[in-house]
Amino acid sequence: MRVSALAERTGVPVATIKYYLREGLLPPGVPTSRTQAVYDESHVERVRLVRALTGSAGLSLAAVHEVLAALDDPPSSRHGLLGAAQRALVADEAQQEPPAGVAARRRVDELVAARGWCDDPVLTDRLAAQLDDAEKAGVPVSPEHLTVLAQAAEQVARGDLATVPEVPADAMRQVVAGTLLTDPVLLTLRRLAQQWASGGAGEVR
Amino acid sequence: MRVSALAERTGVPVATIKYYLREGLLPPGVPTSRTQAVYDESHVERVRLVRALTGSAGLSLAAVHEVLAALDDPPSSRHGLLGAAQRALVADEAQQEPPAGVAARRRVDELVAARGWCDDPVLTDRLAAQLDDAEKAGVPVSPEHLTVLAQAAEQVARGDLATVPEVPADAMRQVVAGTLLTDPVLLTLRRLAQQWASGGAGEVR
Repeated sequence: MRVSALAERTGVPVATIKYYLREGLLPPGVPTSRTQAVYDESHVERVRLVRALTGSAGLSLAAVHEVLAALDDPPSSRHGLLGAAQRALVADEAQQEPPAGVAARRRVDELVAARGWCDDPVLTDRLAAQLDDAEKAGVPVSPEHLTVLAQAAEQVARGDLATVPEVPADAMRQVVAGTLLTDPVLLTLRRLAQQWASGGAGEVR
Repeated sequence: MRVSALAERTGVPVATIKYYLREGLLPPGVPTSRTQAVYDESHVERVRLVRALTGSAGLSLAAVHEVLAALDDPPSSRHGLLGAAQRALVADEAQQEPPAGVAARRRVDELVAARGWCDDPVLTDRLAAQLDDAEKAGVPVSPEHLTVLAQAAEQVARGDLATVPEVPADAMRQVVAGTLLTDPVLLTLRRLAQQWASGGAGEVR
């Protein structure tokens, strides 16, 4: 199909598709003349994925590059796949965070030990910095609240893992794009559930 | 204290504080001369909050304005407070989302009915658009996965509500800033829990 048809199929404007091409987020089509090229179903999929990652999931272009690189080069076996997916998720969102204070760092170490989690240095650093931020903003996260969040996160993670297909390339896509695109879903559900819980229903269930 | 001391207390550079002042995110200090002013503890708190909201929580300046307006004008009673806090949370993150498809819309309606949640139009529209995005990106959210996310969200929401203090102004701050600043905490915990669940621990607990 031509770029105009690709735009129609995906609902993404031609100008945006050309931008994706220039930025290397979309592989070039097969040239049919000096100024035209044709695209296939893999381009339709890729345009939709890039659109969703930059839209709902709110990723920067640099982050989308990281995610696509991981998706385009999945490990050949299921073994090690989740690790690779996790690294893409972490790299992709890497922020410049100031080092967290000693107290926040200790809270994270205790949490990780108490729950039997892996001590991933990037994630635990990030968590400590986020706890520090909340504390500095005047809304410290209590130990009880952190435990509730951790338990809910485990429930979510078990559900996430249950969705992972057998084929490595599909599994990679599901873990990386699936997590990034259900992050905003989870936060919206949290707000709906807060309304429900504040209506009193939360106490009786 | 002078602006230099305010910078030292908060760890936020003087240039950034002056930017907050220009943007109206920080109330002016009490002028002591034509070019100088003094600041108090309320400024320390506010600078830290703005810093955390624009940093960890990733809010835009316009969104921070909305949140601060809500915090500066809390309802005078506890009654109606949660509603006002929720409106600030929703307004603040309002995005231009394309209308979701009929299928996504129906899934959200069914979920809200099944869980006995309130049918908040802004949140349910947003949720439908997010489900549409995931579907278009090739990682549709299965009904089972959505249910797991909703159950976890209820668990989080009950924990959130348990942290809300009695004083209306404090409660407003806790719900609005507390939710925004623990959103990234929850997402980091999800990734740590995914590593844990993928290690097999998720199946035996």
